[in-house]
Formats: sequence, structure tokens, C-alpha cells
Amino acid sequence: MTRTLELHDDRLFPANPDARAVARRLYAEVSDLPIVSPHGHTDPAWFADNGNFGDPAELLIIPDHYLFRMLYSQGIALESLGLSPAGERTTAERRDVWRLFASHYYLFRGTPSSIWLDYVFVKVFNLDVRLDEETADLYYDRIAERLELDEFRPRALYERYNIEVLATTESPLDDLRHHQAIRDSGWGGKVVTAFRPDPVVDPEFDGFAGNLRQLGDLTGEDTASWQGYLNALMQRREYFKRFGATSTDHGHPTAATADLDPAAAVRLFAKVVGGKSNAAEAELFRAQMLTEMARMSLEDGLVMQIHPGSFRNHNQRVFERFGRDKGADIPMATDYVHALKPLLDRFGNETRLDVILFTLDETSYSRELATLAGHYPILKLGPPWWFHDSPEGMRRFREQVTETAGFYNTVGFNDDTRAFMSIPARHDVARRVDCSFLARLVTEHRLPEDEALDVAIDLTYRLVKKAYKFD
Amino acid sequence: MTRTLELHDDRLFPANPDARAVARRLYAEVSDLPIVSPHGHTDPAWFADNGNFGDPAELLIIPDHYLFRMLYSQGIALESLGLSPAGERTTAERRDVWRLFASHYYLFRGTPSSIWLDYVFVKVFNLDVRLDEETADLYYDRIAERLELDEFRPRALYERYNIEVLATTESPLDDLRHHQAIRDSGWGGKVVTAFRPDPVVDPEFDGFAGNLRQLGDLTGEDTASWQGYLNALMQRREYFKRFGATSTDHGHPTAATADLDPAAAVRLFAKVVGGKSNAAEAELFRAQMLTEMARMSLEDGLVMQIHPGSFRNHNQRVFERFGRDKGADIPMATDYVHALKPLLDRFGNETRLDVILFTLDETSYSRELATLAGHYPILKLGPPWWFHDSPEGMRRFREQVTETAGFYNTVGFNDDTRAFMSIPARHDVARRVDCSFLARLVTEHRLPEDEALDVAIDLTYRLVKKAYKFD
Amino acid sequence: MTRTLELHDDRLFPANPDARAVARRLYAEVSDLPIVSPHGHTDPAWFADNGNFGDPAELLIIPDHYLFRMLYSQGIALESLGLSPAGERTTAERRDVWRLFASHYYLFRGTPSSIWLDYVFVKVFNLDVRLDEETADLYYDRIAERLELDEFRPRALYERYNIEVLATTESPLDDLRHHQAIRDSGWGGKVVTAFRPDPVVDPEFDGFAGNLRQLGDLTGEDTASWQGYLNALMQRREYFKRFGATSTDHGHPTAATADLDPAAAVRLFAKVVGGKSNAAEAELFRAQMLTEMARMSLEDGLVMQIHPGSFRNHNQRVFERFGRDKGADIPMATDYVHALKPLLDRFGNETRLDVILFTLDETSYSRELATLAGHYPILKLGPPWWFHDSPEGMRRFREQVTETAGFYNTVGFNDDTRAFMSIPARHDVARRVDCSFLARLVTEHRLPEDEALDVAIDLTYRLVKKAYKFD
Repeated sequence: MTRTLELHDDRLFPANPDARAVARRLYAEVSDLPIVSPHGHTDPAWFADNGNFGDPAELLIIPDHYLFRMLYSQGIALESLGLSPAGERTTAERRDVWRLFASHYYLFRGTPSSIWLDYVFVKVFNLDVRLDEETADLYYDRIAERLELDEFRPRALYERYNIEVLATTESPLDDLRHHQAIRDSGWGGKVVTAFRPDPVVDPEFDGFAGNLRQLGDLTGEDTASWQGYLNALMQRREYFKRFGATSTDHGHPTAATADLDPAAAVRLFAKVVGGKSNAAEAELFRAQMLTEMARMSLEDGLVMQIHPGSFRNHNQRVFERFGRDKGADIPMATDYVHALKPLLDRFGNETRLDVILFTLDETSYSRELATLAGHYPILKLGPPWWFHDSPEGMRRFREQVTETAGFYNTVGFNDDTRAFMSIPARHDVARRVDCSFLARLVTEHRLPEDEALDVAIDLTYRLVKKAYKFD
Repeated sequence: MTRTLELHDDRLFPANPDARAVARRLYAEVSDLPIVSPHGHTDPAWFADNGNFGDPAELLIIPDHYLFRMLYSQGIALESLGLSPAGERTTAERRDVWRLFASHYYLFRGTPSSIWLDYVFVKVFNLDVRLDEETADLYYDRIAERLELDEFRPRALYERYNIEVLATTESPLDDLRHHQAIRDSGWGGKVVTAFRPDPVVDPEFDGFAGNLRQLGDLTGEDTASWQGYLNALMQRREYFKRFGATSTDHGHPTAATADLDPAAAVRLFAKVVGGKSNAAEAELFRAQMLTEMARMSLEDGLVMQIHPGSFRNHNQRVFERFGRDKGADIPMATDYVHALKPLLDRFGNETRLDVILFTLDETSYSRELATLAGHYPILKLGPPWWFHDSPEGMRRFREQVTETAGFYNTVGFNDDTRAFMSIPARHDVARRVDCSFLARLVTEHRLPEDEALDVAIDLTYRLVKKAYKFD
Repeated sequence: MTRTLELHDDRLFPANPDARAVARRLYAEVSDLPIVSPHGHTDPAWFADNGNFGDPAELLIIPDHYLFRMLYSQGIALESLGLSPAGERTTAERRDVWRLFASHYYLFRGTPSSIWLDYVFVKVFNLDVRLDEETADLYYDRIAERLELDEFRPRALYERYNIEVLATTESPLDDLRHHQAIRDSGWGGKVVTAFRPDPVVDPEFDGFAGNLRQLGDLTGEDTASWQGYLNALMQRREYFKRFGATSTDHGHPTAATADLDPAAAVRLFAKVVGGKSNAAEAELFRAQMLTEMARMSLEDGLVMQIHPGSFRNHNQRVFERFGRDKGADIPMATDYVHALKPLLDRFGNETRLDVILFTLDETSYSRELATLAGHYPILKLGPPWWFHDSPEGMRRFREQVTETAGFYNTVGFNDDTRAFMSIPARHDVARRVDCSFLARLVTEHRLPEDEALDVAIDLTYRLVKKAYKFD
């Protein structure tokens, strides 16, 4: 027996009728604003080539670690979900992958994944029955059929999704050829890059030594010397800016920063480049590089994003067999108050530098992040990130941050996703949850409704454009 | 002036009429399901002997650390509450204990203790006025009178409470004679044991050396050797399984695990068994034993429960005078992401091993526990534990865990209590709070009501039977 | 276009009509109770001299770090807000400071600062339009005009605010001349001092060595000897008691306590007084002094308040230019369970000692603070403190503390402010939020309304008088 699938107009709004009415009014004013997506992981090749997306499993399941991690947690092998062990080809039939997913879709009850996917199913693929074992083939066929149409190609969807700007994320070693191709194509969409230097600033990154050599080759700098290395990074930042980059992004295990004197930095770099650094020295080098990057940002104006606190590839066996980004990154308790002090001592009072902080440790919201951002001119708070980019997570963020940092030390929403199809779904959730939070303030007479509306537009559109310099 | 006591049908449901209506409908379907109690501390002798319970104070106050800790915090001596200093007999008259408690019952306003007790007062003892100084004697007499009746004996209450299975917890040194007696009696109730090896795996446990000798005597193994010790534990696990045990339980100060190579394990055991281990070595030994226990569970199928993070017997003077378990165990910040890695590296990807994690540190819910359980096949999350097994605690658990781990990496409710009278009260609170959480999801259009009902039955009945292998 | 400003009668109450009705009824019974303010930072000179307050900026903005930290975080220079760099006079015109503030008042949307200020604007200055760029001068003129009236002098406001007792905070080095003058004046207001010994017990406090000498001069004790130092402190405590002090207050970086044997304490003091202590020794000395202060409190009956966990003067440049207390104090993760053990081992079971704990780390509420205060007779929990003395912060406190510690291990509200004008506003917020929390318990049938009313009066008035011995 198939069951009706519908997106209720009031989804995610508070149950109280007065608060719901306010939320509806606020949402009505922001629901159609363009999407500004300043931080994400879509593939620029999609927009360069504008080819059709693949089959439903390849598009919606195989790249989405939120989905396969949940199924894996219930004992389902990654191979049967279409993931390929290193050096092998998966043998799973795509339709079987989809059926397996469909029959376990109940696992996502109460999770943001089901909210996002149901939105895509209804709004993009016009499905009106729920996904389960019985409807798996109907879904597969409907989605496969649509994906062959021109209006389901990347550029068409970008336009249909009302995206104003979309940032991808690239390594300094990337030649940005796809971004070049997008520009050369004359297409009107605005797809920009962002500078993610982890492969060349983290001594523990896979292939670090080779990456430094490649960085030298790309730039003509001597990346075996500290100064040449810094020059090379500065040069790549300039190159990225030519492709629209307005920001850098830093995904370190901790938020540690350092401010070594130049001689100590030279010595540390020599150890690191010689492959002789231990774990503590690698950590110190990453810490020093955050401060170096802040210094460069002060010069070139790139907004700096710090995303700390993930224990990457926690599952040793999955990492060995399947590689990075397989749903096994686990958040850790993260200190900011001591970790950021060296960088803040050096640059914290600048008014021409912008550093956006993210966290995977919600305990830092009210204790450290709101209090730091509510004081230091350079600091702003990124939206709830990874695992916390959910209705409850977004609510906790606003409840725990707003009273100390206000709304204006936050920067709007990031979808932070490689799941392109779900970008509007994710922004829609953020808009609905923010409007619901504001509606509670209005209904409890803590904020007049006209000001709440102003804030709603700020949170949806104005703050992100300002924070990421897309004005 | 006595005041009416009543249990409102809508207690613990949300105030919003729409959400309340949904909660009522969901609760109506689960309120009468049998109680499955997979983890607790009732005394198997009660069911073996089936004698009458003692007086009201002995039954309801003296063994309940939630109650006497609160009164102690307000300056009331433990002796006057009927607790006996080691080696002494308490001189407090039981009726005086009851009166003292009654006159301080207002201290429990807003706490789960008053919810549980009021349920027992109304449902079990048919009381209809509130407990206070004035009604103390009326309560004492009514309860004492009832406790003499046959229908208030342990087996009758077990049946009246609609318990399907009840697990107790025993040390490996226990001969399980009461469990044997229950079986021999021909009574139809299902009371099973669980294997709690702390006294023989924690070098800092009182009497550890003697415990190891006793373990050797019981099993005929040489528990002074590493292999003999492991054999003895395996043998006792088998013995416990004969008495229905489906799980082990581990109450360590931290969640630390280790995976030493065999030679190092032998050396560490020699130190430990020789009484020469320091605090760090004791911690390492406990850590190693968790991994050994996981290995044994993989062999014999016992579900492993890890209950870390309590600073036991924090109050030195109370410990010296009154001994263990006197309301002075205090939660500590608890790391899981690093602590569990050795065990997870070894066994994390097994599909035939089940490890249920509990926490006293709510900050780990969204940060570590939901993310670990939402990835590793062996991990599931136990319900909110000790201090957090309350309406607000249960709500926080669902709000912080569900979006990442879903409902299906959790295992239903544990009452974890020695307060037998209150077992239905505790399950009733859990069912009401879960239905209220689900009702919010339904009212906010995040979950269709038919699916919420399915989840409600899972959380109440199906998941616990599956997780603890009571199918 | 000016916009109406009004304080809604139902502000901060829950949106649900049933819960709101209960909140209204509870609030009606407590809204007019006198204000008991046991902990704060108003200036006793105000009440001694009873002169007119200064201009609007000097009164409302320049001393309020909640306000200028937010503007500073948005890139506005502290000088332009009327703050003076050390050794300089600010050149900012006060009206310009006010205008700058007014044009950025939108930054405080959703923060407690706007709730407090709007209350003052309406209730004290009878303003009925909102503060913004356009109304800045209207505000400035209205407030300035009122401040010249007799009924806006400190004593008149104290009376109008229905304050029953107001505690200020002084250093042991203070001669309490203003408190003497208040007493000599014959005025009926009750302004008492509190003993804050940080300048003479913290070796890292600015001018510590000189402070000890001054302490010696004041008391005639040899403060270069351990015993003389302790005598001097005891003597000053007695002196403070003569001016109404009922409490001491301790603002350490951590909650660490120690209980050294006397010889070790003498050795440590010698290092400290000789200026030779390192950071660890300074920390140990502060830790030891908390235990010494507890010992003295057991003798002289002063209630001990511990306010740990602030990283003071985190912004090095702001500290160097502007000095202490400039909005750059940042909370840190704070342990209590290990930190307090030495003090608790020594004095935890006393029934004639009262220690009130505060925290800036909300994660300790349910994990450590509620569980410690729900057991140890000497411990009570102070209200949500600094950054958390807000509607959401107060709600989290009640939700996370009550189920384990109950209401009766808490001590009512502290306004903890130097912003005298806003004291009634702050108490009003606390009363409304507590009534809202109680109303939820009533509406969810977790507490009968008659008992909720009793609790509301306790939280507003009775508990604070009892805890701080103002009976």
C-alpha cells in the first residue's frame, strides 16, 4: 500500500497558532529570495560541462555520507551501497543500491536527510508517494527519466533554484580549469571558487611533500624555503581571486593558532618540509599557518573560514578500504578561548579582517563562540555546521548564540554540501527555522514583528552577501 | 488541610492542543504494552522468596539514593533517614523516617522523584491526598497495611505491572542461587541476570585480589595467570547465560579502551594481580578488559553495555561512614571519540557484536555519541541514564541524538532501578515523553503520524527486545 | 518615522494560552515583591552622596560592558563610545556617544540588553518611541532632563525601585567610608558590602605585593607571615560584617581548591609573598585560599560565593590601552567535580557552612553542579551568571538544574550589575522567566498550581533572604 507524500506548507513552524501565524508572515517575505551559497562542495565540472547527471543512486545516494553512514551503522556493507573499495570497481547494480536504500528509508525518520530528500522528491521530481520498498522502482524510473531531460542539467537547475552565487571549494593545487570553462562559456550563472589550503598547510595531509613540490612547480617559487612557500601561497590566493574567490577555508583538527617569531617559524618549516615533524610540530605548524593566512587575508581581503574539530577518518578499516570522507569523521570537544588567542593577540582588533568561526562542538556556542564574536571585531560566527545543520541544531544555535552575539555577528546560512539537488531544500529548512525562532521572540514580545522581518531578510540574504563580500 | 493528589491523564504531554492530541493518540497505543526491563538492580531474592516487602520507609526511602541525597543536601543526617553507618545499626524508628521524609517532600517539586512516587502512591496504594507533614501517618499506615497483603508481594506485583522480562545485575562471583530458585519454583515470571564484572576487572575495586582468588575457586581456573583469568571470565559468562543473561555491563570511571599486544597484556596483568599497579595502570587494565570483553561478546553473543563517567563515592566522609552507593556519585566530563578508538579499531566494523553506550555527560549526545552510533555497526545508544532519566533529560536526549543517529540506533528504555515499586512509573514517564517528542515532530510536519506511531511502538517495545536479544 | 515602544504585559511569557494564563497568575503574586539584591557592583558612593547621576551616556552606556562590547565587535572604536585609554581623557562628546549608540541599537535585537534598556526607557523615563538614529536626540534630552530632578537621585530611585537590601562588593583594602557615610546619614535604605578578596589572595592580581603591604598597614598584622596574613584577612572580614556584609565573593580563573598541610602552606605563602611563584603555584595558592576562606566562613558565618571560569582581559591590546573590565572577559570550560574535592573533603558535610557556586560553563549545570548541590550540605547554586542572565539562559538553568537539585538548592536571583537603573528590569526578567518555567510544569501537570505559586514566591523572595542570611 503506497502512502501519500506531501510537503506541508507549515512544516517546521511552531505548533502554537499565534507563533505559526507570525512564522508564516515572516517566511512569506523570505521564501523567494535568491539563494546565496558561499560555502559548499559541488563540482565545478558540472557547470562547466553541463552534462546530464547520472542515475538516481549515483546522484542522490553514493556521494551523500549522511545517507550511507546511517545504513552502514545498521550493518549494511558500503559495497552494497555502491561505494568502491580503493582500486576496485563496485559491482553493485545501481537499481539494487536504490532498492536497498528505499527499504531502509525509515531509518531517517526524524532526521534532516528525510526532510531534504522529501523536498527533492516532491519539488524536483514531482513524486507524491513516500519512498519505501514498494515504491523503490517507481522512484528509480521516475528520477532516471527526468535526469535525461535538458531541464535537469546542472545549469538549468542552478537557474530554476534561483541561485545568485554558488561557491565551490578547491585546493591551491587545482588549476581551476572548470571555473575557467564556466567563464569562457558565456553562461550567466555565478560559480566562484574558495581557497582551501589544507593539502599544502597540513603536514599530516596525504602526500604533503609532493603537494609542496607541485605548489612550487605551479608558482615558480622555491617552496622548500619558508619565504618561497609563503610567496607561493600568496600567489595562489591571487589566482583564486581571479576566479571569484572571496574566502579561504581551513579544516584543522583543532582551532589552535600560533604566532612564532620569524626564526622559529623558519626552523619549524624546515622540519616540516623535511618530513621530520612529529605530531606536536605538525599541530604547531598548522597553528602558525592560520596566523599566516590571517596576515595574508588582511592584505588581500579574502574572508577566512575556520572549520575545526573533526576527528577525520576515525574508522581505520573503512579509511584503508574506502578512503577519506566515508562518513567516519567524528566531532571532538573543541577549545577556542585559548586556541585562538595567539591569532587574536596579533590581529583580533583589526577592522579590515574577517574570520568566520564554525564548530562541531555545540557546547562552545554560548560559552566561547558567542562571547568571542560579541567582542572581537574580526570574528563572526558561521551557521550550525555538519550534523548540526538540522532543525534542532539550528534552533540550538540561535537560542545559545543570539543573546550574547546578537544576530549581526552571524553570517547567514551555508549549505556546505556536495548534494546539489538538495541545496534549495537546505536553504528552505534554514529559512523556516530562523523564521520560527523569530516568531517565538515576537510572540513572547521580545522583538517587534517589523524588526523581526528586517532580521529575517538579513539572515536569509543580506548578511551572507556582506560577510562573504558578494556585494 | 489535606490537598488532593491526582495523576492527570495528560501529564507530561505538551501544552499545545494539537500536539497534545497527537501525543494522546500515540500514547493510547503504547501505554498498555508489556514492560521489558533489560537493565536494573532489583534483588532476585524478592522473586525467589516472594516474601512481603518491609515497611514503607524500608521499601520506598532507605534504598533510594535519589531521595536521601536530596534530603542530605539540605542538612538532614543520613542516620535520621534510616541509613546505617558501617558496623552500626540505625536507631531511627521507621515511622520517624517516613515523617521526616514527608515533611520535606516539597524538596522534590519539579523532580522526577515526585512524579514516580506520586504514581506509586495513586496507582499502587490508592492514595488521593498529597504527601506532607500532615498526611505522613495516613500514608505510613495505608502503605504498611497494603504491604501485608498477598497481592503486594513481589511476584504478584510483577504480574500486575505487566512485566514481560526483568533483568537483574550480578557479579561474576555470585552463585545465582536466587535465579536458580526462581526457575525451580515453576513461577512463570521471567527474571534474568546480567553479567557485571567490575569486581573482578577493576584493580581499584574493593577486595579485588580476594575477588580474583574467589573467581579461581569458582571456576577451577588459575586466575593468577592471564589466560586462566580470561578462561574463568568466559566460563562465568557461560554460567550467566544459563540464567538468561543476554548482556554484560561495565561501570568504569571513563570510556577508555585499549588493545595491547598479548605480551604487554600479560605483563600488565602480572602487575595488577600482584597488587603493584598504579592508577594509570589500573585505568589501562580496565581499558584492556573492555576490549577483551568485546572479544568474548563476539564469541558468545552477550550484548555489551558501557556505563562510564561516574566519579564514585565522591564524598570521602560519607563513603567511610556509610559505604558505597550513598548518593555521592558525581558525573564527570566524558570523552568517547578517543577513548573508544582502540576497541573500535579492533571490532568496530563487526556486524555480530552489539555495544550499547550510556553517558552521564549530556554534551556528548550530539557531538560524539550520535555521530559514533550513526556510523559504527557495533554501536547503539542506551537511553538517558541516572540523573538524566527525567522528562527534561529524555527530551534533550531525543532532541540531540535523533537528527544524527535516528531512532533506530537507540534501544528503548532502561529503568535501571532498585526501586521495584516505581518501575511502571518510570516506563510510563519514558513512554509519555517519547510520545510528546514524536507529537512535536508530527505537529511540525516533520514526521507523518502513522510513522510516528510505528516509531512509538518501536521505542516502547520492539527496539529493546531486539537490542537485548529477548526475541 | 518614529516607531512605538511598548512593554507588553505578557512579555517573556509562553505563547501557549493555557501556560500564559498560569504564568500571569503566578507573576501577579510576585511582581510587586521587594527586590533583594545580594550580589552586585553598584557604587556605594552614589547612596552616600546622593548626587544626581551624570548624562545619559555616562549613566547608561559607558559603564555597561554588555553594550560597548557589542558595538566594539562591529568595528566601532571604544574611544568613540566614551571610553578613555589609560592616562588619557576621552574626547568624545557625550551626545555623540549617545547618537552612535542609538544608530546601532538594532544590534541588540534578541538580546537581554534591549529588554533591560527598553524597560528603563519606558518605566523610568516614560519614553514611548523606540530608540534609533532618528530618536537619539529626543532620548538624550528627555533622559538628561530627568536626571536633574530630585526623584532621579540614587536614594529616590532605590526607594521607588522597592529595594529591600542592596549589596555592593568591595576589596579588603577598601575603608568602606561610603558605607559609613550611608549609615551616618540616617537614610533608611539598606546598602551592605560584600567581601571580595581577589586583590589580596590572587598572586597574579595587579599590585599584589603592594596590596599585601597595605593589608598589613590596615590591620597591624605582619602580612609577610602566613599566620599574620590569615589574621589580617579574618580581621577585615569582621570589619566588613560591621557594614552588613553577609557574604564573601571569589572570582578565580578556575574552581580549584586545595587543602595543604600547614607546613606546605607556609612554604607556598613564602614563595608567593616573595614574588617567586610561577603560574602553577599561583593557582595552587588561590586554591588553598578558597579552603582557608571556607574555614573562616565556618567560624564567622559569612556565606561564600565562588565565581570561577572567566578568562579575564582576553584581549591583550584592549587591556593594555583601556585596562580591566572592558568586555573582553571570556568564559572557559570549568571543572567542578575534581576542583572542589579538596574543599569538600574537608568541609563538605558541615551544616553551618554555605557555599554558593556560579558558572560560566552551562555544560556543568546538569552534569556537575546540580549533582553536587543535590548531595553536599554546604553547596547551593547561584542563578545563571554573566552572559547567561538572559531569558534563554535562565530557562536552560531551570531545565537543566531542577530535576536533580530541585528548587531548594538554588538561591533566587542576583542582578550582579553596576547598571543601577536596570536593576528592576533584571529582576523583572528573572521573575517572568521563572514564572514561565513554573507555568510549563503546571500546564504539563508536573506541579500543582498552588505549589508552583509557593515556589514562585520562594524563588523571588524567600530563598535569597535565607541563602544570604538577610532574615
